[in-house]
Amino acid sequence: SLEVSNNDAQTSHETAIIPGLINIASFIPSFDDFESATRASLVSGFTYNAFLPQTAEGCTVVDSESLSNAISNATEFAYTDFSISIAALETNADGIEEAASNAGALFIPFNEFSSSKVSSISKHFASWPANKPIITDAKSTNLASVLLLAALHNRTLHVNSVSSKEDLDLIKMAKEKALQVTCDVAVYSLFLSQEQYPELELLPTKSDQEYLWANLKDIDCFSIGVLPYLIAKSIHQRLVPGLGVTETLPLLFSAVKAGKLTIQEITEKFHDNPMKIFNFPKQDASIEIDLDRLIPSTRKLGLSPFDRKQLQGSVNRVSFHNQTVCLDGEIVAQQAVGKHEVGNKGRSLSMVQQSPTLGRKSRLS
Amino acid sequence: SLEVSNNDAQTSHETAIIPGLINIASFIPSFDDFESATRASLVSGFTYNAFLPQTAEGCTVVDSESLSNAISNATEFAYTDFSISIAALETNADGIEEAASNAGALFIPFNEFSSSKVSSISKHFASWPANKPIITDAKSTNLASVLLLAALHNRTLHVNSVSSKEDLDLIKMAKEKALQVTCDVAVYSLFLSQEQYPELELLPTKSDQEYLWANLKDIDCFSIGVLPYLIAKSIHQRLVPGLGVTETLPLLFSAVKAGKLTIQEITEKFHDNPMKIFNFPKQDASIEIDLDRLIPSTRKLGLSPFDRKQLQGSVNRVSFHNQTVCLDGEIVAQQAVGKHEVGNKGRSLSMVQQSPTLGRKSRLS
Ligand SMILES: [Zn+2]
Ligand SMILES: [Zn+2]
Ligand SMILES: [Zn+2]
Ligand SMILES: [Zn+2]
Ligand SMILES: [Zn+2]
Ligand SMILES: [Zn+2]
Ligand SMILES: [Zn+2]
Ligand SMILES: [Zn+2]
Repeated sequence: SLEVSNNDAQTSHETAIIPGLINIASFIPSFDDFESATRASLVSGFTYNAFLPQTAEGCTVVDSESLSNAISNATEFAYTDFSISIAALETNADGIEEAASNAGALFIPFNEFSSSKVSSISKHFASWPANKPIITDAKSTNLASVLLLAALHNRTLHVNSVSSKEDLDLIKMAKEKALQVTCDVAVYSLFLSQEQYPELELLPTKSDQEYLWANLKDIDCFSIGVLPYLIAKSIHQRLVPGLGVTETLPLLFSAVKAGKLTIQEITEKFHDNPMKIFNFPKQDASIEIDLDRLIPSTRKLGLSPFDRKQLQGSVNRVSFHNQTVCLDGEIVAQQAVGKHEVGNKGRSLSMVQQSPTLGRKSRLS
Repeated sequence: SLEVSNNDAQTSHETAIIPGLINIASFIPSFDDFESATRASLVSGFTYNAFLPQTAEGCTVVDSESLSNAISNATEFAYTDFSISIAALETNADGIEEAASNAGALFIPFNEFSSSKVSSISKHFASWPANKPIITDAKSTNLASVLLLAALHNRTLHVNSVSSKEDLDLIKMAKEKALQVTCDVAVYSLFLSQEQYPELELLPTKSDQEYLWANLKDIDCFSIGVLPYLIAKSIHQRLVPGLGVTETLPLLFSAVKAGKLTIQEITEKFHDNPMKIFNFPKQDASIEIDLDRLIPSTRKLGLSPFDRKQLQGSVNRVSFHNQTVCLDGEIVAQQAVGKHEVGNKGRSLSMVQQSPTLGRKSRLS
């Protein structure tokens, strides 16, 4: 599905057509922002948003009712296809499996658990349907403990926003032992570090960041996540919807230009692997990117953590549902064209069965 | 090896002969106390002490040199056979494997690790020889994370002083998935609770304590550990050597009389299972116990957490190394008869090979 060509003859710009990208950890500060956030997504090349259950208010989607409300709201306003995850809490393991069929995934926000972490997370692993993904943001020993519970319950686990060598090494070791674990790195983590924002522990240190770059092959997906919002708050940047989404591809395209990354890797980590891991429904969507186009410095982002003059590459055209929906950074679709689309059972189950079970590799080697 | 009879004719007391018992987590406040502590052990029916690497000063045995010193010291003064474990620290993973052949086990005192817990504990699992036991006192999510690392490194792990339903459930689940994990409960945890000593988080709550009693079959060993010392400090009891050892068997014998426990279970958890798990060398040692004898109230323990009038049962005789070394609570051995005895490689290795590897059970079922 990847075509790279020099068809922008007048300017000899390099262009490429790749599938519509998938935002696997899409954070919006408020569920009033579905329209503006998904418009910004679509223009930026993302045709699917898997929304996190948290907003600036904390965990917002926590049961069938809050999930239904969020879905109705998004259905009315979304310009991209989407799903919404439900948050695992200490108290909602009994009951949320009813909401599972409508949910994108179960998201375990580890720091929301105060006591009895092991037993309540274990309950979630036991009751959440096996064909639905589980995602966590746990780090360090907490990550190790969630990984153990996933293994004991024979569950797949996706680790969101890995930011340290220690955590990536743990995940690599778990993969070597055939645990069913995958991970993503937030794109901002590849470009910003704790040295620049000492108050943001979610960012990697400079040396952890170098390790992430050096081990991209072990990182299944890219994500956007909550980091752009946290950084914006910390530098008093305007909290516009779509924050981070707008800058993510230019950051990556510039890395391609710098020889640090290939377009193939972007497609893999923002489309192919997310499709496999989360079993998203197939989309009829593609984007045409121009790797040389400079980023207009007039975009209304206010203060930014990046020197925008250093960035280049942008999305020329987005095709979605058999029509051109964006052209040169403008939405040409007449209405909210997004649909609520969650993975279906059959495919998801078969994926789980194909995966080797805990320990298989260690037995064979 | 268990004989129960009524051979104490004059008093119709019930007596039994069982193997010399093994103190798998023997804490002494100072390594100056080997003589007094092992004398108290021997009189109380324990013919083997596996000493913890900590004293009241903190981690004391941390490298080859401190281990050798402790062993020389103990060899001179010990009245029981013994081994000494070495403490895993954040900084000593490189190097302590040299000390392994002389060490009883590697003890991972989880709370001593401040940062990089996962990577430093992982290093220890990678470098500590496979034929030597690893013990940890980790709890809750920390326990889950150590369990994962043990599983990823295909290592056996013994969990010391389990005190909550949550941790025991986790261990049960890990055993069901064929992880190579065993555990012990400190005897004091079966009789004292946080309700009595709110400042002692190492004690179980009353309901956790009931769960421990109800699930004795899943508890591999009994231990004595550090609890008697901590409780003594908290109630300003005199810190005599052998604290806790003296009261442990009377507590258990009284539970036997109350129908809550069998002598067989005591033998299993204080001898048979420790032998299997830690591969201690076979001892020629037996003790004769009198289940009905009242505990002399004149013992010089000072204040005690227990109502001594409620306790009965005591050790009449200890035979060790082919001689009677204790009679009616008095040592009759002429000198320190204990030897430094650590498990040998061959047997230990074969035990590891017999154990199912991680995940095997889940694959078969
Ligand atoms: Zn161009
Ligand atoms: Zn389960
Ligand atoms: Zn696609
Ligand atoms: Zn669609
Ligand atoms: Zn008697
Ligand atoms: Zn290893
Ligand atoms: Zn024996
Ligand atoms: Zn001996």
